[in-house]
Amino acid sequence: MKMLTPNQLNSLNFSGGPGALPETVLDQVREAIVSVPDVGLSILGISHRSDWFASVVAELETNIRVLLGLDKGYRVLFLQGGATQQFSMVPMNLLRGSPVAAQYLHTGYWSGKALPEARREGPVQVAWSGEASGFSHLPTDAELALDADAPYLHYISNETVEGLQFHRVVGRDDVPRICDMSSDFLSRPGEFDRFSLIYAHAQKNIGPAGVTVVVLRDELLQKMRGDVPTFLDYRAQADANSVLNTPPVFAIYVILLVTRWLRDEAGGLPGIAAKNAKKAEVLYKALDASRGFYRGRAAAADRSLMNVVFTLPGSDVEQRFLDEAADAGFSGLNGHRSVGGIRASIYNGLELSAAEMFANFMDDFARRNR
Amino acid sequence: MKMLTPNQLNSLNFSGGPGALPETVLDQVREAIVSVPDVGLSILGISHRSDWFASVVAELETNIRVLLGLDKGYRVLFLQGGATQQFSMVPMNLLRGSPVAAQYLHTGYWSGKALPEARREGPVQVAWSGEASGFSHLPTDAELALDADAPYLHYISNETVEGLQFHRVVGRDDVPRICDMSSDFLSRPGEFDRFSLIYAHAQKNIGPAGVTVVVLRDELLQKMRGDVPTFLDYRAQADANSVLNTPPVFAIYVILLVTRWLRDEAGGLPGIAAKNAKKAEVLYKALDASRGFYRGRAAAADRSLMNVVFTLPGSDVEQRFLDEAADAGFSGLNGHRSVGGIRASIYNGLELSAAEMFANFMDDFARRNR
Repeated sequence: MKMLTPNQLNSLNFSGGPGALPETVLDQVREAIVSVPDVGLSILGISHRSDWFASVVAELETNIRVLLGLDKGYRVLFLQGGATQQFSMVPMNLLRGSPVAAQYLHTGYWSGKALPEARREGPVQVAWSGEASGFSHLPTDAELALDADAPYLHYISNETVEGLQFHRVVGRDDVPRICDMSSDFLSRPGEFDRFSLIYAHAQKNIGPAGVTVVVLRDELLQKMRGDVPTFLDYRAQADANSVLNTPPVFAIYVILLVTRWLRDEAGGLPGIAAKNAKKAEVLYKALDASRGFYRGRAAAADRSLMNVVFTLPGSDVEQRFLDEAADAGFSGLNGHRSVGGIRASIYNGLELSAAEMFANFMDDFARRNR
Repeated sequence: MKMLTPNQLNSLNFSGGPGALPETVLDQVREAIVSVPDVGLSILGISHRSDWFASVVAELETNIRVLLGLDKGYRVLFLQGGATQQFSMVPMNLLRGSPVAAQYLHTGYWSGKALPEARREGPVQVAWSGEASGFSHLPTDAELALDADAPYLHYISNETVEGLQFHRVVGRDDVPRICDMSSDFLSRPGEFDRFSLIYAHAQKNIGPAGVTVVVLRDELLQKMRGDVPTFLDYRAQADANSVLNTPPVFAIYVILLVTRWLRDEAGGLPGIAAKNAKKAEVLYKALDASRGFYRGRAAAADRSLMNVVFTLPGSDVEQRFLDEAADAGFSGLNGHRSVGGIRASIYNGLELSAAEMFANFMDDFARRNR
């Protein structure tokens, strides 16, 4: 392998998650392991009941609300358990006891994971499924059979395994929209006030694994039943300002640093979205220019700006591609174990220069192996 | 405040949790933020599906089993959600549908928190409660009304708020024993093979907040019902080797470093137990020598070796004590918000020299304010 510095290796990390974080954030985290500015103690030893941590949660809540353009009618919670926990928490709080089915879109691997957990709690209707077409594209609005009486519509904005992303808000404005944005949260602007509940684990665009952000409308809290275990009760978590029990202090602090970076260095959501679009453009261009050597998994209109998923002609060639990429310092490029192939994840923390280097590698590899 | 270095400030952290970690562990964590040895990437950007992370989980499972003296009949899981999640997971998996009540000991604030979550899932019988006596002592064996038919007995080995700790194993060997060891896990040797399930969040003795260790007998898994949300199903978590979904990679890595430190530098559980006993002895001696100026909360026989909890004559004096302690660099000494007073937590990461410095401070303060 080429001799690269740790910072260079981190900059070439295309992992599907946990993903790369900005170098300036890593520098601050490194310092905080020994001493958090204005506190003087290690971030790993500061009480979650300290005034300092209360100020972290308060600033982070504000940063996220401001970045999303939401008003105080929304609460921001920091929970554990990943999107998987949300697959259960959402129907536990909003579907149990309902005679009317909640609607779910089944657009890929991860939205499929949400279904059995929802069915455990109440009736579920799949308003559209891409299963028969191999999850190669997303539905048009005309294809969706939406129910005005459903307690909510649940979908995933970006399917990391298949590399599919919605580039519009779907659903009806008179039915609560619940969206798993785990893999594109804070990666682009949007009409976030059209959602009743958004959740996102941190380990793609905004921090380390171990914390999940939930943004939800205050009025949705009033509709909840509340007869669930306390730690799975959104109302109890909101009442306790995310410190119902000891939260993942470290992970929350890292998200705070990332939101400051987004705000102060990355140009907010418009700035990061422009960068993310450019990175995706560079990679899809390399893919399209290969004249079929690289085959994209997703229909062109639904291509993800976060995960560029493709195959090569045969598993031998794919393995050689991965080996040569690793030799050049690129990492995290294996496709999800359920589909194989190659996946280049280009989350917020990845720089345009890394995408350009990888696109050059793709061009060169295609030329030599076509 | 005295001018102290970050390492000195960390060494004087008596927080009830998240607590202080050993300096050598912090040094390694700091390095790993930029580059994990043998991997070259930031610990925050390494996939949980990597071979490296599988080796972390495997080594950590072995380290914990060896430290506890348990054989392969036990599984070790790394979950999220803290002890609070376990308050629900235990009865969800082992009490739902049972006609016979599970037995619980109510010995203080935290064991009390487990009760309503258990009652939500099935019948509960409190086999002993210290509520009437203000949680000032623990039960003798003769005081326990144990039921041979109970699906399990649940208790907490160390109550952090009241500073009470069991110095023996309680319960019947023919009833599964389930113990919340969150605040004294890996702090002393014990007959751990007499327990069916042990759980402990990390943020006292073994790591940062955000990960919970569950050690359970393989045969207990067979008794579980399994009709619970997948992420709350011990069997599903065991089948997936703790990577059912993305685990808190960073926190698990820090625990691995702490177990290596315990094994290689701290003399294993006998070594750390001797150090912990000595720290407690030094502080309780200062308390007893004050001739009633400091009043210990716990009955002498049940004093905790982890949390030394006491009051001073009046809240003004307590505030002055806290202020002067802070000026001297000591932190984290406020008693739990439910009881007030002072709490000096002396977990694994705290050095004997710090306990001695604090004991001297106590002696001096008592002399000047008595």
